Amino acid sequence: MRIYHGNIVYSKNKDELVELSNGYIIVNDEGIIEEVSNAIPEQYKNVSITDFGDDVIIPAFSDLHVHAPQYPNRGIAMDKLLADWLNEYTFPLESKYKDEKYAKEVYTKFVNDLIKHGTMHAVVFGTIHNPATDILVNELENKGIQSYVGKVNMDKDSPDYLIEETNQSIKDTETFVKKHSNNKYAKPILTPRFAPTCSFELLNKLGELSNKYKIGVQTHIVESLWEKEEAKKCFGGCICDMHIYKEAGLLNRKPFIAAHFIFPSEEDIKILKECNGYAVQCPDATTNVIAGIMQTGNLLDKGINLGIGSDISAGSYLGIYRQVASVVRLSKIKAFYEKDIRTINFKEAFYMATKQSGALFNRVGSLEKGYYFDALVLTDLNDSFNKLKPAELVERFCYSGDVTNIKSRYMRGILINKD
Amino acid sequence: MRIYHGNIVYSKNKDELVELSNGYIIVNDEGIIEEVSNAIPEQYKNVSITDFGDDVIIPAFSDLHVHAPQYPNRGIAMDKLLADWLNEYTFPLESKYKDEKYAKEVYTKFVNDLIKHGTMHAVVFGTIHNPATDILVNELENKGIQSYVGKVNMDKDSPDYLIEETNQSIKDTETFVKKHSNNKYAKPILTPRFAPTCSFELLNKLGELSNKYKIGVQTHIVESLWEKEEAKKCFGGCICDMHIYKEAGLLNRKPFIAAHFIFPSEEDIKILKECNGYAVQCPDATTNVIAGIMQTGNLLDKGINLGIGSDISAGSYLGIYRQVASVVRLSKIKAFYEKDIRTINFKEAFYMATKQSGALFNRVGSLEKGYYFDALVLTDLNDSFNKLKPAELVERFCYSGDVTNIKSRYMRGILINKD
Repeated sequence: MRIYHGNIVYSKNKDELVELSNGYIIVNDEGIIEEVSNAIPEQYKNVSITDFGDDVIIPAFSDLHVHAPQYPNRGIAMDKLLADWLNEYTFPLESKYKDEKYAKEVYTKFVNDLIKHGTMHAVVFGTIHNPATDILVNELENKGIQSYVGKVNMDKDSPDYLIEETNQSIKDTETFVKKHSNNKYAKPILTPRFAPTCSFELLNKLGELSNKYKIGVQTHIVESLWEKEEAKKCFGGCICDMHIYKEAGLLNRKPFIAAHFIFPSEEDIKILKECNGYAVQCPDATTNVIAGIMQTGNLLDKGINLGIGSDISAGSYLGIYRQVASVVRLSKIKAFYEKDIRTINFKEAFYMATKQSGALFNRVGSLEKGYYFDALVLTDLNDSFNKLKPAELVERFCYSGDVTNIKSRYMRGILINKD
Repeated sequence: MRIYHGNIVYSKNKDELVELSNGYIIVNDEGIIEEVSNAIPEQYKNVSITDFGDDVIIPAFSDLHVHAPQYPNRGIAMDKLLADWLNEYTFPLESKYKDEKYAKEVYTKFVNDLIKHGTMHAVVFGTIHNPATDILVNELENKGIQSYVGKVNMDKDSPDYLIEETNQSIKDTETFVKKHSNNKYAKPILTPRFAPTCSFELLNKLGELSNKYKIGVQTHIVESLWEKEEAKKCFGGCICDMHIYKEAGLLNRKPFIAAHFIFPSEEDIKILKECNGYAVQCPDATTNVIAGIMQTGNLLDKGINLGIGSDISAGSYLGIYRQVASVVRLSKIKAFYEKDIRTINFKEAFYMATKQSGALFNRVGSLEKGYYFDALVLTDLNDSFNKLKPAELVERFCYSGDVTNIKSRYMRGILINKD
């Protein structure tokens, strides 16, 4: 049992950001929050206290869309256009993961940096390579990161060196799923790259695996105007991108993670809602490669589950906190250019990055009773001449902060990193 | 005399980014670069060397538009709309600068943080208050920051507590200009807030001061659709925002700094070019408060001088390097939404933030022979598993880096800060 004292900020729902100045969080020996309070309750009077003074305690972040193998390309070639970026940088890099030594080096750094930036839960793309993706899963599992990780499937319309033969792709996927099905933290997820690089046979067989192993799916959905049309062209009988996955039996198990979801039709939205899936906004990524801007406010108002992704390396920064700011900022640009668009406020974006995305995992994303104490302690954000309130400090962290503002990181009640 | 060894990156022009792996910069005792070379020239064989190994040496940045008094509000209230943000946050904050003690505290931190983020040259707004703005100038002068600093003028259409009486405003401005006219680094500049808050009498009298003291002007030009129309409405005889300043005699001395310049008419562009003025893009600021996106490519192609501004606190981050990334990113969004817009590449944005904006000051913004060694040493950007080239590391710094990547700072050849 332990008590943490400081300024406490967490989302209760999309409209309510709880802000407790000088509060106490009581955490039990399983790392679960027993109580959050303005004073120490009588029965905990003798429990030892960790005092963070004026620092701010917030829930750790979740990154719902990130390509771990693309980490070596973060922050470069960002002025390229999509096709050049894919063919000259992204695909050649992904082909390197046939080398397990290379994979081990990259994935070790990737997972360390995730934690450094305060991300403790993630939905992660690997590559087509089983041994490399096994290494990625093991790194995440060993570090205790609650995550869904996928070996990528792609059997058409990709560079020769990345195309799989359909049956081998399915066989490798089944091996991958079986190998990691008993993991405690890092769980397998099916990962067809996106509709234009998958045959219907591949998707259909992945649907069978989904049912057989009760396992969810991550992919890219209506990520660009090109992809939206191309997907329909490739799958003639389907009326929209989501319809393809429904037909293939890929929406029957949870979770379903739809990265980007920028240009959904009403039917796409309806199907995503029916399967209780998540749409993931990756604001910097979709502006770096000119895909467009998600209709975040509309989707939130329709009750679609929304999360935020760093989308390395179309995105360039691993910290989800910067993406919280970018979600708000992009909603303003969208409102400037398009009619009848509402903007997103800070509370909503923070909720997306913490409590709503955390709901994909086990008891994380908030600091309410019953949640794991997966938390960050933020420091050095206030000025001596102008004291801000705790929630303002969290906003400042997202807009103006960096990794130096994360003083401590707790995972399930355990201090995992400290300056 | 001193030699610096490392990877060297600087702009020669907007299309040419020089990248010298394992290069040498020879700096004389005045802090001026004598030579940049692949090897140590014979005559410098005995000069002592500072070896930065694989680290990258780049020119220090210039921030061409920043409101120092708004620094306490950085990164908060960023989901507000412009009118609320001004009336609830910005104007009340600026009124605090009647208190010199408050000003001293803020401006000390502001100038320290500028340097910390690698900005060594700046064009800075103060407030209407002389004593406070004197403190700001003195802080910049004492730290040796080459800068233009203005006491703000506004005599109409503002909150009561910030409106000046016209003659007093002019009298105070003349006092301010005379007081700082012999400064070595931090020089006065006339600073009418923007056309809608200035009477023509005020602008006209500022024009007289400009001629009398041979001193330039900074202001906001066509910063929003509202401002563009309002300016013309307030000054009936003028056909565009720039025309107002021309009529008032405010374009006769250098420099003329036009912050934002988002919605210029052809006439605005023509007048700005005639006076060899600068347009300053503040990408995060103009998206945070929904003003719009500068037509950067078009202006660059027309030969307009362009710089980059942090525009604290409509902007939220003091480091100009992040804004370099944002300039590229916003050009892609603009290309997505508007027709016939070309995107900006990294070379161009870096050139704007260094050599082109540096040309406003004395011998800064590049690492060529004859320039002051105002430089940053960047570290910890490379991966062991994937060595990048020096220019790629600089791009990564702008997209994915933070202040921890700035290992050392040199101003006119003097080491001013080191971890």
